[in-house]
Amino acid sequence: MQEFFPEIEKIPFEGPESRNPLAYRFYEPDRVVMGRRMEDHLRIAVCWWHTLCAPGSDVFGDGTLGRPWHATGGDEMAQARQKVAVGFEFFEKLGNPFFCFHDRDIAPAGDTLASSCDLLDQVLEDVEAAMARSGTKLLWGTANLFGHPRFAAGAATNPDPEMFAYAAAQVKHVLEATHRLGGENYVLWGGREGYDTLLNTDLRREQEQLGRFLSLVVEHKHKIGFTGTILIEPKPCEPTKHQYDTDAATVIGFLRRFGLENEVKLNIEVNHATLAGHSFHHEIAWALGENLLGSVDANRGDPQNGWDTDQFPNDHVELTPALYEILKAGGLQSGGFNFDAHLRRQSISPDDLFHAHIGGIDTLARALLCAAALLEDGSLQAHVDQRYQGWESALGKEILSGQTSLADLDTLVREKNLEPKPQSGRQEMLENLVNRFT
Amino acid sequence: MQEFFPEIEKIPFEGPESRNPLAYRFYEPDRVVMGRRMEDHLRIAVCWWHTLCAPGSDVFGDGTLGRPWHATGGDEMAQARQKVAVGFEFFEKLGNPFFCFHDRDIAPAGDTLASSCDLLDQVLEDVEAAMARSGTKLLWGTANLFGHPRFAAGAATNPDPEMFAYAAAQVKHVLEATHRLGGENYVLWGGREGYDTLLNTDLRREQEQLGRFLSLVVEHKHKIGFTGTILIEPKPCEPTKHQYDTDAATVIGFLRRFGLENEVKLNIEVNHATLAGHSFHHEIAWALGENLLGSVDANRGDPQNGWDTDQFPNDHVELTPALYEILKAGGLQSGGFNFDAHLRRQSISPDDLFHAHIGGIDTLARALLCAAALLEDGSLQAHVDQRYQGWESALGKEILSGQTSLADLDTLVREKNLEPKPQSGRQEMLENLVNRFT
Amino acid sequence: MQEFFPEIEKIPFEGPESRNPLAYRFYEPDRVVMGRRMEDHLRIAVCWWHTLCAPGSDVFGDGTLGRPWHATGGDEMAQARQKVAVGFEFFEKLGNPFFCFHDRDIAPAGDTLASSCDLLDQVLEDVEAAMARSGTKLLWGTANLFGHPRFAAGAATNPDPEMFAYAAAQVKHVLEATHRLGGENYVLWGGREGYDTLLNTDLRREQEQLGRFLSLVVEHKHKIGFTGTILIEPKPCEPTKHQYDTDAATVIGFLRRFGLENEVKLNIEVNHATLAGHSFHHEIAWALGENLLGSVDANRGDPQNGWDTDQFPNDHVELTPALYEILKAGGLQSGGFNFDAHLRRQSISPDDLFHAHIGGIDTLARALLCAAALLEDGSLQAHVDQRYQGWESALGKEILSGQTSLADLDTLVREKNLEPKPQSGRQEMLENLVNRFT
Amino acid sequence: MQEFFPEIEKIPFEGPESRNPLAYRFYEPDRVVMGRRMEDHLRIAVCWWHTLCAPGSDVFGDGTLGRPWHATGGDEMAQARQKVAVGFEFFEKLGNPFFCFHDRDIAPAGDTLASSCDLLDQVLEDVEAAMARSGTKLLWGTANLFGHPRFAAGAATNPDPEMFAYAAAQVKHVLEATHRLGGENYVLWGGREGYDTLLNTDLRREQEQLGRFLSLVVEHKHKIGFTGTILIEPKPCEPTKHQYDTDAATVIGFLRRFGLENEVKLNIEVNHATLAGHSFHHEIAWALGENLLGSVDANRGDPQNGWDTDQFPNDHVELTPALYEILKAGGLQSGGFNFDAHLRRQSISPDDLFHAHIGGIDTLARALLCAAALLEDGSLQAHVDQRYQGWESALGKEILSGQTSLADLDTLVREKNLEPKPQSGRQEMLENLVNRFT
Repeated sequence: MQEFFPEIEKIPFEGPESRNPLAYRFYEPDRVVMGRRMEDHLRIAVCWWHTLCAPGSDVFGDGTLGRPWHATGGDEMAQARQKVAVGFEFFEKLGNPFFCFHDRDIAPAGDTLASSCDLLDQVLEDVEAAMARSGTKLLWGTANLFGHPRFAAGAATNPDPEMFAYAAAQVKHVLEATHRLGGENYVLWGGREGYDTLLNTDLRREQEQLGRFLSLVVEHKHKIGFTGTILIEPKPCEPTKHQYDTDAATVIGFLRRFGLENEVKLNIEVNHATLAGHSFHHEIAWALGENLLGSVDANRGDPQNGWDTDQFPNDHVELTPALYEILKAGGLQSGGFNFDAHLRRQSISPDDLFHAHIGGIDTLARALLCAAALLEDGSLQAHVDQRYQGWESALGKEILSGQTSLADLDTLVREKNLEPKPQSGRQEMLENLVNRFT
Repeated sequence: MQEFFPEIEKIPFEGPESRNPLAYRFYEPDRVVMGRRMEDHLRIAVCWWHTLCAPGSDVFGDGTLGRPWHATGGDEMAQARQKVAVGFEFFEKLGNPFFCFHDRDIAPAGDTLASSCDLLDQVLEDVEAAMARSGTKLLWGTANLFGHPRFAAGAATNPDPEMFAYAAAQVKHVLEATHRLGGENYVLWGGREGYDTLLNTDLRREQEQLGRFLSLVVEHKHKIGFTGTILIEPKPCEPTKHQYDTDAATVIGFLRRFGLENEVKLNIEVNHATLAGHSFHHEIAWALGENLLGSVDANRGDPQNGWDTDQFPNDHVELTPALYEILKAGGLQSGGFNFDAHLRRQSISPDDLFHAHIGGIDTLARALLCAAALLEDGSLQAHVDQRYQGWESALGKEILSGQTSLADLDTLVREKNLEPKPQSGRQEMLENLVNRFT
Repeated sequence: MQEFFPEIEKIPFEGPESRNPLAYRFYEPDRVVMGRRMEDHLRIAVCWWHTLCAPGSDVFGDGTLGRPWHATGGDEMAQARQKVAVGFEFFEKLGNPFFCFHDRDIAPAGDTLASSCDLLDQVLEDVEAAMARSGTKLLWGTANLFGHPRFAAGAATNPDPEMFAYAAAQVKHVLEATHRLGGENYVLWGGREGYDTLLNTDLRREQEQLGRFLSLVVEHKHKIGFTGTILIEPKPCEPTKHQYDTDAATVIGFLRRFGLENEVKLNIEVNHATLAGHSFHHEIAWALGENLLGSVDANRGDPQNGWDTDQFPNDHVELTPALYEILKAGGLQSGGFNFDAHLRRQSISPDDLFHAHIGGIDTLARALLCAAALLEDGSLQAHVDQRYQGWESALGKEILSGQTSLADLDTLVREKNLEPKPQSGRQEMLENLVNRFT
Repeated sequence: MQEFFPEIEKIPFEGPESRNPLAYRFYEPDRVVMGRRMEDHLRIAVCWWHTLCAPGSDVFGDGTLGRPWHATGGDEMAQARQKVAVGFEFFEKLGNPFFCFHDRDIAPAGDTLASSCDLLDQVLEDVEAAMARSGTKLLWGTANLFGHPRFAAGAATNPDPEMFAYAAAQVKHVLEATHRLGGENYVLWGGREGYDTLLNTDLRREQEQLGRFLSLVVEHKHKIGFTGTILIEPKPCEPTKHQYDTDAATVIGFLRRFGLENEVKLNIEVNHATLAGHSFHHEIAWALGENLLGSVDANRGDPQNGWDTDQFPNDHVELTPALYEILKAGGLQSGGFNFDAHLRRQSISPDDLFHAHIGGIDTLARALLCAAALLEDGSLQAHVDQRYQGWESALGKEILSGQTSLADLDTLVREKNLEPKPQSGRQEMLENLVNRFT
């Protein structure tokens, strides 16, 4: 197989002062940060779809990237195999320990479900061989339940139960394939589980369908002995007007409704957070507050654009507080950081694929270092602990443990004539403190 | 007591062709719509705070409305009593069957909790007398836990447990006052239960505090025999950067987390829905889908402004689908429609208060009539039923009742070689259909 | 040629009470409204691109609509001719007097600019014949300067002057084709005239290029004797992060900068207005305030989605104020109302194309009737006139005619001890007044 | 006069490694950056209104900050003088070379325009004395034309010409006061020049009024010999639904319309940029592209909140590209960077005022250093120059100089069979390049 990136060598770490655009300045896999190798903290994954499949098209224009495997009229299976070869060449040169995929990214669809599964299995043989050879691992697999016209009205929430069955069969296959490849997680992204108009939608019924579907996946996971984590990825809209897995709070409420809060965790995406009107920091902190953070799609959106721009992260200052929360909670376990991000449509040179990923990885590595320094310093945590210290008092503990009633508290206030004084929230001072580490 | 609106008589119903700006064109209290009087459907409530207390100020400027009871240096208790008199004059002329209030709208704060309660009770004597005389009832009461500097960092979620105690005592008093006045609901709006920066915030702890607080209120409700509904009003932000009661889905998840989903319902506000990135229709449908809709704040926001503009509703087309959902679900029970809406700052003439409320009430009445016609017609519902009819088949029922596994569905798809065909979602046709009724 | 919509007859007007979904309830072409036929007021145009070319794809999924002329591997010129036939069958059944097009909608691209122009000319022969036979006219033509990868970095604002030349040649041809077909306007939509990142962008230079390009188009228009109107269509973003023709105010400023404010007018799109943070009403009023409104793209966006959803209009209440402004200014001249709107991806039945357009046309017709009634009533205008009557006084006229200085006005205020009193802005009353007509 | 901040000394520069929260880490006034002292680059100004006058109130709650000069019932002139003393104590300890003010921040309003002017002049005597003593200078003055109820419907755009006259007289006085104090600029912020509803608004007329008002101010400036710069500060909304001075492009178009583009420059605010849907970088680059950047309000908004949060800047990465543009253009001249930013409502400790300003100043200083390094490096500019180099060719120059027509360019494309190839836009690589400097 011919190299696709013949002029690019394995990307080295060269340190912050390097001016080599094809080197890492911060990502040093073996560097130990708070007792864990940087590579093991970040567990970087490249996404098959955007990185290898995206043609550089958008709603207003055709593909610009000119990948040979997008040529029309080609042998689709040969093209899929070419993508595998190029993918692993890229992974080995970039040095990412993981990748992730949808079934449809890897192999073309066949005429029937069965033939689609067969085609996938055939290409996955190449993938398995490449994984064995290279050591690159699978962070997660997922089924594409949104691209084909059959899923226009959703998969699990489709008004047609046969579409539900079709989707179920497809997920079964990809879950098993993920298991076979040693994948560490399986992701369900809502795709078209949502609505375009409420006028034709029975919300109550569709929620029941969605809960049932997820329960089936969880059952099957246990049946086949898959010990990875099932993840749901929240998103508030796009492609549908409203996606049911809106944000972390909504998904967690959904998990509790169907009794799945101990079975499923969250895959938080930065750009989906901001589309939902939340900061990424918020979504991470919220998921961690419920012990339900699983993994991260570390792209970014454009603050002025209202759609999913899926750009590579490039601002370590913005990511540091989220990394701080993750580190404070002990770091990611089965999850990792993937880039659900694609090249800009004008970035048509093959080496742009490296620049984009190098920038993203370095940004995460830099944010990790900043966050670790902030955590090790301890001042920020000390301020927070001090702020809430009253809740460690007898009164605080009695309230939270349910020993007091409204009437008790009323009596307390009246008898002691309580008039508690507010304390400064210290927002600006704490912002400055964090800036010492970025 | 001198009349405040001497030139305005009781607002009559005059029908759609009326050109009298001080008449209703659609709101006809005794008209029976789907078996219930229009007044009993809408259960219109005027809000004490915006309608009687708002001075016409904003962040950039002083009050414009020139109400005599806002004069500085006045006798605050006399001013509060004047507001009661003016309020009931207004209610009787407008013809709204309900009002709602915060404690601080009714009476000034005292030096201590106890004295604040006393002052409230004194003014509530006037209110009770006016209620008895006029027949105007209390839709709900609520405690102001956000205006005083002591609550700058929240009430239930305050970092100081004494602040929690203070808030608890305040709620106890207002809940009891609401009970005494025969209020049909008690509302908790998040106020400052949220955060300005995550840097100083312990999300996990604050959620526990908030759950505990709500549990205390529910316990006390039962203890005192209050049979009204406890309501939470979602809002995503403002005044804090992030409010914990973000939207219907978030609040419902919170209720489930703390086992309160059978004790508390939702008070949905139009403008809060849109601030959260949802349509009002969505929030209503979502709450109804979980049987948790309690009441409605029927203001509107400005589609181009990103804050809570709290304007009176004026577009019956926009409200019709939400009213349709409510009617379809059997209508509101203990809840009603209130106007958490205030006059524009330039609407300084006393009769503007009437124009605003008349417009709001007529808009709701018109939307109710449109929604009832749409529901009685039945075509829209027939389309929806037809769309989901597959779920009434054997396959649909087996899936939902948990009798099938992923493997069963996979076998079904493979054996029958299922290739279900999508059906038109008919969005534009249904939008046209709805337009026949608006 | 076989009919594509064999089951659909010419859409009749049946009046407001009709329950026939394939009839107009408000659009009555010959009805005279304020002295002009309704058809001549609205000058409805169907867009070739969305209506005939859109496949029902989006960023996340393939085409759903299954039009035969989208089949891969077909004879592209035969498919283009099939589109012409289907298009005019549709126009004749729908009854729209106008259509509009981009070059690339009508005919496929050739290998060179010259061959692309030839292919277009060939298909336009079919179009001309169909126009002659049916009487359907061309509202406007435009060149697609955004779909091909060559325009990824813009056309007029491309960093490569050869791309500018290529775009210039393409516009020349389409402008001439528009002229040949008797088109009444020629539109320039910014496409990719904007930037994806400021880091690689020379704003000053690109503005100069854009001004030059527009000047060239205007020169050529006069040279060939085209008497139609040149129109620019504002949009703030998408596909680029930032589009230079952001909104009406920006485009008007640009026209003045390059001395083109008497040569070019605006084509205002509803969804572009809202993406720019303005109401459609605002953009219309702003353009009219400068005598620069040319034509209207009458789609709508989704208030909760931050991208260009391009939906058919369906809310006459929302459109009424904009129609009122247009009527008050004497109505559209060479422009009209087109639907830059496409079917929802689930609307896969061929008759959905009729439902969508019928709904859109009826909504405009209904808004026109409401606006005319409001204008004929005169009360709203009387309120506005009364509000500004002071400016008809001597003082008002002196100020505006430049006869007073700051010092004169200071003297006036001090000598007369002026303390003018604010008047009510009457917002709610006027909103109610407008509602009498919707 | 007693010190208000007795425990705080003059804030020293201690360098990046300092852990002293009351020291600068980057702001070193005498450090020479690209040939100019850092102090002279940044020309930092503290705002009288937010820093000294803001009480910590918001729409939902009372003031929290407890400044003695806000006590009700006080002697307003004595309070105003106390603010002067505290202000200059603060300035001297902080080390900002400039301040800026509205008339109403400095002194209370009197019963008439004349008495208001007198009161202002009295307090300005204290200010002048303090300026002379401390060396702190005035960056700009401005008149508050939005706070008093008289301006509810705007000042220059008021429907009452007497209100226009009143505003004119007020501006005359403050412009003269600014001149007397040696102010280097005079700012006009739109305040309530905009509309709350288009229903009662005559846009065309109000634009004429606004143009006239600005012309009067410019005339008077010349008449009194004020050589400072007149600045307009764009904002898209708030307090009004729509502000006429929407953004840089709109204001520049307005200046051209009234022939004032050589007389007036822009004061760009970060938070106003983002409210308008633009990045701050965009607004700066746009204003510079027209040679119309005057000064900067360097606050920031909250990316998740849709109102003007006016927070102190704290992210140097976000500011670096804007500072780069400013440096590349030769730096600010008569303008500077002020903080139109106020403390968070919970930041109630007096030293929070220092933390906030220190953080803001240090963030600007750090961004300046990053931007200077990026500019001195030259790689970014080299990429941009290379990207546009075609425009330096004969073809590029002929096009821009107006020597070619559409027909010429068409001939060129056809004869040379031009098929220009797109080049990579290098977005990700350039983002990485910039990150080397932040």
